Amino acid sequence: MFLHNKRMMYDVRVDQPNPAFAKMLLEQFGGPNGELAAAMRYFTQGWNEPDDQRRSMLLDIATEELSHLEMVAQSLVMLLKGSPSELVDQVEGNYLGDLLDGKMPDYVNLSLGSGLNLLGGGGPRLTDSMGAPWTAAYVDTLGQPAADLRSNVAAEARAKVTYERLIKCSDDAGVKDTLNFLMTREIAHQKIFEAALDSIEGNFPPGSLDGDEKLGHAYIAGDTGNGEGPSTEGFELAQQNSSWGFEFDSEPVKHASNQDIL
Amino acid sequence: MFLHNKRMMYDVRVDQPNPAFAKMLLEQFGGPNGELAAAMRYFTQGWNEPDDQRRSMLLDIATEELSHLEMVAQSLVMLLKGSPSELVDQVEGNYLGDLLDGKMPDYVNLSLGSGLNLLGGGGPRLTDSMGAPWTAAYVDTLGQPAADLRSNVAAEARAKVTYERLIKCSDDAGVKDTLNFLMTREIAHQKIFEAALDSIEGNFPPGSLDGDEKLGHAYIAGDTGNGEGPSTEGFELAQQNSSWGFEFDSEPVKHASNQDIL
Amino acid sequence: MFLHNKRMMYDVRVDQPNPAFAKMLLEQFGGPNGELAAAMRYFTQGWNEPDDQRRSMLLDIATEELSHLEMVAQSLVMLLKGSPSELVDQVEGNYLGDLLDGKMPDYVNLSLGSGLNLLGGGGPRLTDSMGAPWTAAYVDTLGQPAADLRSNVAAEARAKVTYERLIKCSDDAGVKDTLNFLMTREIAHQKIFEAALDSIEGNFPPGSLDGDEKLGHAYIAGDTGNGEGPSTEGFELAQQNSSWGFEFDSEPVKHASNQDIL
Amino acid sequence: MFLHNKRMMYDVRVDQPNPAFAKMLLEQFGGPNGELAAAMRYFTQGWNEPDDQRRSMLLDIATEELSHLEMVAQSLVMLLKGSPSELVDQVEGNYLGDLLDGKMPDYVNLSLGSGLNLLGGGGPRLTDSMGAPWTAAYVDTLGQPAADLRSNVAAEARAKVTYERLIKCSDDAGVKDTLNFLMTREIAHQKIFEAALDSIEGNFPPGSLDGDEKLGHAYIAGDTGNGEGPSTEGFELAQQNSSWGFEFDSEPVKHASNQDIL
Amino acid sequence: MFLHNKRMMYDVRVDQPNPAFAKMLLEQFGGPNGELAAAMRYFTQGWNEPDDQRRSMLLDIATEELSHLEMVAQSLVMLLKGSPSELVDQVEGNYLGDLLDGKMPDYVNLSLGSGLNLLGGGGPRLTDSMGAPWTAAYVDTLGQPAADLRSNVAAEARAKVTYERLIKCSDDAGVKDTLNFLMTREIAHQKIFEAALDSIEGNFPPGSLDGDEKLGHAYIAGDTGNGEGPSTEGFELAQQNSSWGFEFDSEPVKHASNQDIL
Amino acid sequence: MFLHNKRMMYDVRVDQPNPAFAKMLLEQFGGPNGELAAAMRYFTQGWNEPDDQRRSMLLDIATEELSHLEMVAQSLVMLLKGSPSELVDQVEGNYLGDLLDGKMPDYVNLSLGSGLNLLGGGGPRLTDSMGAPWTAAYVDTLGQPAADLRSNVAAEARAKVTYERLIKCSDDAGVKDTLNFLMTREIAHQKIFEAALDSIEGNFPPGSLDGDEKLGHAYIAGDTGNGEGPSTEGFELAQQNSSWGFEFDSEPVKHASNQDIL
Repeated sequence: MFLHNKRMMYDVRVDQPNPAFAKMLLEQFGGPNGELAAAMRYFTQGWNEPDDQRRSMLLDIATEELSHLEMVAQSLVMLLKGSPSELVDQVEGNYLGDLLDGKMPDYVNLSLGSGLNLLGGGGPRLTDSMGAPWTAAYVDTLGQPAADLRSNVAAEARAKVTYERLIKCSDDAGVKDTLNFLMTREIAHQKIFEAALDSIEGNFPPGSLDGDEKLGHAYIAGDTGNGEGPSTEGFELAQQNSSWGFEFDSEPVKHASNQDIL
Repeated sequence: MFLHNKRMMYDVRVDQPNPAFAKMLLEQFGGPNGELAAAMRYFTQGWNEPDDQRRSMLLDIATEELSHLEMVAQSLVMLLKGSPSELVDQVEGNYLGDLLDGKMPDYVNLSLGSGLNLLGGGGPRLTDSMGAPWTAAYVDTLGQPAADLRSNVAAEARAKVTYERLIKCSDDAGVKDTLNFLMTREIAHQKIFEAALDSIEGNFPPGSLDGDEKLGHAYIAGDTGNGEGPSTEGFELAQQNSSWGFEFDSEPVKHASNQDIL
Repeated sequence: MFLHNKRMMYDVRVDQPNPAFAKMLLEQFGGPNGELAAAMRYFTQGWNEPDDQRRSMLLDIATEELSHLEMVAQSLVMLLKGSPSELVDQVEGNYLGDLLDGKMPDYVNLSLGSGLNLLGGGGPRLTDSMGAPWTAAYVDTLGQPAADLRSNVAAEARAKVTYERLIKCSDDAGVKDTLNFLMTREIAHQKIFEAALDSIEGNFPPGSLDGDEKLGHAYIAGDTGNGEGPSTEGFELAQQNSSWGFEFDSEPVKHASNQDIL
Repeated sequence: MFLHNKRMMYDVRVDQPNPAFAKMLLEQFGGPNGELAAAMRYFTQGWNEPDDQRRSMLLDIATEELSHLEMVAQSLVMLLKGSPSELVDQVEGNYLGDLLDGKMPDYVNLSLGSGLNLLGGGGPRLTDSMGAPWTAAYVDTLGQPAADLRSNVAAEARAKVTYERLIKCSDDAGVKDTLNFLMTREIAHQKIFEAALDSIEGNFPPGSLDGDEKLGHAYIAGDTGNGEGPSTEGFELAQQNSSWGFEFDSEPVKHASNQDIL
Repeated sequence: MFLHNKRMMYDVRVDQPNPAFAKMLLEQFGGPNGELAAAMRYFTQGWNEPDDQRRSMLLDIATEELSHLEMVAQSLVMLLKGSPSELVDQVEGNYLGDLLDGKMPDYVNLSLGSGLNLLGGGGPRLTDSMGAPWTAAYVDTLGQPAADLRSNVAAEARAKVTYERLIKCSDDAGVKDTLNFLMTREIAHQKIFEAALDSIEGNFPPGSLDGDEKLGHAYIAGDTGNGEGPSTEGFELAQQNSSWGFEFDSEPVKHASNQDIL
Repeated sequence: MFLHNKRMMYDVRVDQPNPAFAKMLLEQFGGPNGELAAAMRYFTQGWNEPDDQRRSMLLDIATEELSHLEMVAQSLVMLLKGSPSELVDQVEGNYLGDLLDGKMPDYVNLSLGSGLNLLGGGGPRLTDSMGAPWTAAYVDTLGQPAADLRSNVAAEARAKVTYERLIKCSDDAGVKDTLNFLMTREIAHQKIFEAALDSIEGNFPPGSLDGDEKLGHAYIAGDTGNGEGPSTEGFELAQQNSSWGFEFDSEPVKHASNQDIL
């Protein structure tokens, strides 16, 4: 079961309201690599995991992601402070007129892109930075431990890079500190999941069927008949950075099926 | 640019029509780990990739996934042959009556779950096996090579396992052979992407910001105050399978922020 | 911040595996009136609420809904035990053949409708009972306390009725007991939110603008010119069950705008 | 059956074109609390309602919401008049250049956020103010009268507040008058549905199962073990504003299930 | 403005309850070619149409589609009569047990696929036959009359064929009569829109830019280098059934751009 | 099977980076009338088409649309060159500060609306111009040749007009040339599909059921009882531009069903 303590896991600092940055930060609230997607990925895996250690790890990290979701929410509220979206319920405003007259600071102008925040009363909505509602289609849980842990390592990589990009887009020392905390925890999670993945024998490829040996090491890049042959660049990249021994197949059409379509 | 040859990349065999299995196979046509999702993941990465070798690899594999999409489509059409969905445009049918009278074989009964196929005229629709339409929310491209390649390795793992499950659910030797071809190619792609990932220095974690050393190796699992302390199982799993040296933090509430929410 | 204890809030009992019922129960996992929708409704309100008491209430109940989500997940896993979806990763099965040969119990047949569960490895997915992925479009948070609390009272009513219907569809004493716990808690939440709503003066209608007195009490039901006049049944229902004094307007066309469209 | 008269229900006035405000107003066209969502909520309830009076009321109000949808559409078209989106089909324009040269009025700049309007030829699209397409996930119809009427009262509250916020964001007397009409009608509908809800005995909680008396009045807020105990603020809010007599449970972990997860 | 008369436009007859057919018929309620999609397509066009005649036509037909939506809803309710979904609110049922014991008629078994109907209390939901919620993505309105009218002619063709398929899947004389009415009206609408399209000069292609003469008549089918050349079947089909004079281009690679990607 | 050649089908020229225009152009990448929607419409039809000529045509054009998708992607990447989204991975930037200080060119300001591009690392995402993810709901394939070909002719009309609007919104000679190529090819496809449609006898209306003669030529526009009668403008438009001979029905209520709803 879950419990909640009203303290934040870490100080959430925002030195300056900034509705435009709030709009970007929505990406980590209700976006594909955001905190809700992370929490739901690990929960749906944890509830379905028969191994005690892995279940415990999945639920520990899922719980922490919910605490991060809360920190992102707090950041969003602080970034929107003083923006029209906060004032709209108290004052019969006329900021559009003021804006067009040049009486309003520039960041108000930018905040016009955040329609849902305005209409939503100043608080965070579960959308990405473009306003697309969060969908469970973001959750790639499969119910097979080796595949799922690999998905988790990849998801933490994407979340880390997204925080990094947001940090680089900000001039606000408070925001940078807050996001640095969140980015660092994604690094920790990536390492923890990598360790759990390493503990599973035969995790690459996952599952119990082996497929065909030769076909499993073919690199297919069909010749398009213009006398130049297909590019071998991708093949060389794979060949030079592994010991699997791939074989180049430039003529898939020649040994294709004789079947007609249908 | 793309070119198309009317031959299939490999013989598509289906020994017996089977609308119920067709419904399941839709998962690899318009589902989250299916061939369209794979093709679009690698295309959106390839078009945005400045490195020649990686771009070439991404477009080679994206192209192959489209050829696989075609094989899945052909399988679906053959599995639906003789099903009511095929007959519905030619005959003013009354198979529902026949069905209730027990005059129809059992698989027809099962096919009733495939409503969209029936109304779609017997052909494949871009949905998953439950009828949810394909969405670009499945495509987790980020535009950062190390993160994207890691996502690709994970995606191939999920695709491989999904084909394995479908193979295990089938009694049809033709279907099994077709799906084994497709599963094997996912293994090949997983290895090719892993090699490309290995060629990137500093790919774990990806990006240029390092985060905090200590916080990046904390394992957080808060005590819930029932005198038992938190479980350490997840921590032990991570600790014993890596050399990073994690530190266990069982009291995140104690050193949490003193900030109130808002 | 959030904490997690591995104990369930209440014993989750399932006396018999039942994949068909599992499919229905998904409605309360990833459906519009399910536990994730409830948790996210109250969280998004709580993070945006300046009043201490209301914020505390919203986060208390949001947290409890997450504990319920966990109980529903556990129920789903137990309902699917022994179903093909559980076996599919261990055995190269041929249950479809067995099924058609009549060697499998009937509930296996029914489970074929739960495609995603099968392909998902036996665990719960964040969809409704028809396979539609959870979407933040279910969360009707507005950021205005009187409107939001009224939405919460209504949402708890819908959740209570959904559990009631599921209880009536089950013959399993364990399942009934589990769902009765969850249904009862929705009743408690409905009362708690109603009390909080009552504490807000001027909550009906919410907001600070009053609108026009007369227009705010008109009941409009236009005559369609067939000599019968419009039905007054709806008007009478409103009039007889309130003291607002509505006025019936059967001729909206007569005093409509003279504007042309565009 | 439905009939249509080309007159608007009320004069739609827009004194100044304003593409930025048009973008915000889309919220009431294709957004979650907009007129289409309202119309579809009452229609799906009305078609499924065996009680004559309630069905009549639901269809009367559903019909009126369609007339409102038309008024919002007309407002949108007038707000976009003179904007690039109107000109784009007649003239091979170069307004982007003019815009960058500072030759265009400021509201044109703002209209660039309304991409779909531009590409859609100047007319309204069924999206919310951020461009997310309308989805039936907004319609919370359940088919149980007491729950549905309560949802309707809540939905009218949200719609009223959304119009109020839009009115406060506008300086245009015509727009304010138009939106005031629409807002006032939401107040009328809220009262009409409240009267209908009051006519149903035993509407709180709805349904026929009672749940457990004691569990139905517990307020659960678990102690997180940091020596402070859980906050009682939410409990006090509920207790002081009702006569139900709630009981505070601060130790849900202590009397939780001994079951392990799974 | 809209008005509503409680009479149906045409007698809705259903001779036998049939939940399985109800599930299929949902396609025309909340599916891509259903009545709501049609009504919204014409409304969004009509509100944006400056020509009086076309606007009048669009709103006339949109209004009729709403009356059809009502007829489909009534059909759905009658098809579900006596099904478990109707009984679920009155009786603490145990039909699942009865079903497994073979005490229930077969169509009840089939109705288990209609989960949302069961949980929705027996009434229609705005989904397609697979449970995917209606989305405004189905509405292809562009705001250019010649393109929109052509879309309407095509949409009526799809709606007609969908009704035809449903008619062929039914043995119920009442249902067949009802659906025949609806199908016939789609034929009428297709002809009406075709007439309106014919009244626009220069409707093929629509718009004011002409493109390049030669490129506008090329048929491109690239040779894939396997010595067979590309198939010319598609080219011949176009050439033999028109007088435009297409030119076959089998070597697009040869005269492609010399640009590298990126 | 598919093959890929690294050359673009036609030179992609962009003379000036322009993030604001890139946002608009997304409409043809991941929007409803864009190149992916076109490719998937023709593929799903082609895989399901028993006629050799039509299947060949559908796959030829589907393949070409993929080559166009690649050209749009290349355009997007070039339009975003030099925008903040490109710099964000290399430099710990502070462009927001520069922007507010007025040190950045105006188009950077506009690009702030393109949140996903920024966070996506500068590359194209499969969304429309407002950020709504691509969905298979855009694909209106039915599996009936006459209906599908008519949908294709309409879809090409919409795509042509969308390119035309984009061309009119651009001042960039390179962009105009690139988009003119793509627009012209949509014209060619529209003609090719029209020829194929003409080759099918009895394509209007499609299908094998005829419906009722008289009802199939009624034009229904109900009188709303305000003494003016219904408008006959739509009827006259249909009557004067066809030889079908429609009949005007202004009194549908009079000969409506006597059934009550339900």
